[in-house]
Amino acid sequence: MDLQTFMKDRKKLVEDALFSYMNAVKAPEVLLESMNYSLKAGGKRLRPLLVLATLKSFGKSEELGMPVACAVEMIHTYSLVHDDLPSMDDDDFRRGKPTNHKVFGEAMAILAGDALLTHSFEVMEDLLNYDVKPIKVVTLMKELAKAAGPTGMVGGQVADMEGEGAQLSLQDLEYIHRNKTGKLLGYSIVAGAILGDATEEQISKLEQFADHLGLAFQIRDDILDIEGDAAKIGKPVGSDTLNEKVTYPSLLTMNGAKEKLEYHIKEAKRILEEIPLESDLLGQLCDLIAKRDH
Amino acid sequence: MDLQTFMKDRKKLVEDALFSYMNAVKAPEVLLESMNYSLKAGGKRLRPLLVLATLKSFGKSEELGMPVACAVEMIHTYSLVHDDLPSMDDDDFRRGKPTNHKVFGEAMAILAGDALLTHSFEVMEDLLNYDVKPIKVVTLMKELAKAAGPTGMVGGQVADMEGEGAQLSLQDLEYIHRNKTGKLLGYSIVAGAILGDATEEQISKLEQFADHLGLAFQIRDDILDIEGDAAKIGKPVGSDTLNEKVTYPSLLTMNGAKEKLEYHIKEAKRILEEIPLESDLLGQLCDLIAKRDH
Repeated sequence: MDLQTFMKDRKKLVEDALFSYMNAVKAPEVLLESMNYSLKAGGKRLRPLLVLATLKSFGKSEELGMPVACAVEMIHTYSLVHDDLPSMDDDDFRRGKPTNHKVFGEAMAILAGDALLTHSFEVMEDLLNYDVKPIKVVTLMKELAKAAGPTGMVGGQVADMEGEGAQLSLQDLEYIHRNKTGKLLGYSIVAGAILGDATEEQISKLEQFADHLGLAFQIRDDILDIEGDAAKIGKPVGSDTLNEKVTYPSLLTMNGAKEKLEYHIKEAKRILEEIPLESDLLGQLCDLIAKRDH
Repeated sequence: MDLQTFMKDRKKLVEDALFSYMNAVKAPEVLLESMNYSLKAGGKRLRPLLVLATLKSFGKSEELGMPVACAVEMIHTYSLVHDDLPSMDDDDFRRGKPTNHKVFGEAMAILAGDALLTHSFEVMEDLLNYDVKPIKVVTLMKELAKAAGPTGMVGGQVADMEGEGAQLSLQDLEYIHRNKTGKLLGYSIVAGAILGDATEEQISKLEQFADHLGLAFQIRDDILDIEGDAAKIGKPVGSDTLNEKVTYPSLLTMNGAKEKLEYHIKEAKRILEEIPLESDLLGQLCDLIAKRDH
């Protein structure tokens, strides 16, 4: 199956599931509006699609992955809402639309983020209705908390903030990206594998695969910030340089960054080949990430 | 057993468990400092103690309740950190100490709150190590998300914010308190009952008990804001009137509020008597809440 077709096709299914979960929430209207506003702002739905693509690679029904797919998208969305806040990145626009706090105010944006984060764990419980064993559901909820919390995404965001204007080594930069974006991307893949009844060994290999893929994703992001097309990426280019952010190109030169990207993609593919899978979706994903223009 | 002795005694155990969980977290130092600062700011540890007192009432080992006790305290703490933010209540002091954002800055306070909330779900998984059945752990995690998220605490906080300066009915006020403080208090009791192998009927009665107790707790809070001793409650009295907040006394007069408090305490005790329990701790708790001076 072609990855682009898969992504286009499944994106709609993910969004339907996402808003069906949201429609069931009984809460003050303005809170729901604020949560939905950012969930609808959309994007590639990359994390949910990673869950489904991995499930498909293990020959399982993708439907099984919907609760996890929606939970990771809620968490990703909350992280963007909080990152955009005036005391954080102070961004007025995201994907061409005013950021949450610009529309709903700062207090509501904080609370909508809190609500999305918390609600994702309620959504996870729906796995029981797909006959997933309770012990697996507990593991998946715990791993989600690890990937998103202080040992993962939040820790990465703090390190990123602390690193602003500072001299960072490649190791520091990799810590930031492994945690800020890598852990939740990796979780999406590993959760798909756990639901797909992968063996311990396969899961361990997929963790390594996801690590390389996550770093590649970030390097490409840094490259796009210099060489990208503002209209395609939905934000002005050169913002990293403007904010004096340490990036792969600033540490390694542009050529060095491109070599590093190639290395991680090659490693990801090498590891993937060691796992017998029923589809090439994850392999195609490597190419997509290496070449993406937004 | 005497409730005061129980609370004094178990408070230390809860705090030891709390910081033992925190010591195991690998995250950037400043994030851990910010999380620990607010966790250490302390208070009564009421929610954890509700978990333990309920467990004891069902004749079970209280140790079993530690993961839930610590999780609810982390969530309660995160809610205070976010509530104090400049865009929310803009409070500089809490319990006589500078608020989190006053010490660590706004961005770090937001992230520390996010981290505490997320980490609480990782802590919950530790229930498996106390031989709690996985299906029970899933239920407890889901109910925690429901109590803390948009259908619970966050929803109540939004309603509270929206209600500022507005004319509220008693029904509106009860919605706010049932959600903003009641749901997490109620969860603490119900979680203790679930861990204590309570029957469906007992859990349903305890939910009603907790509802009355939660409202009583809030009415007492409103009364203390007028009649309390600033030194004992750790904040100036009269702040509700100053902020033009609708309270029980403002809606019902002081006498009306006191009658309402008495009614909820009486109802809570009546319901409690219908459940065969091995200790009178929850009954004593009713009296404590009715008469508390801080």
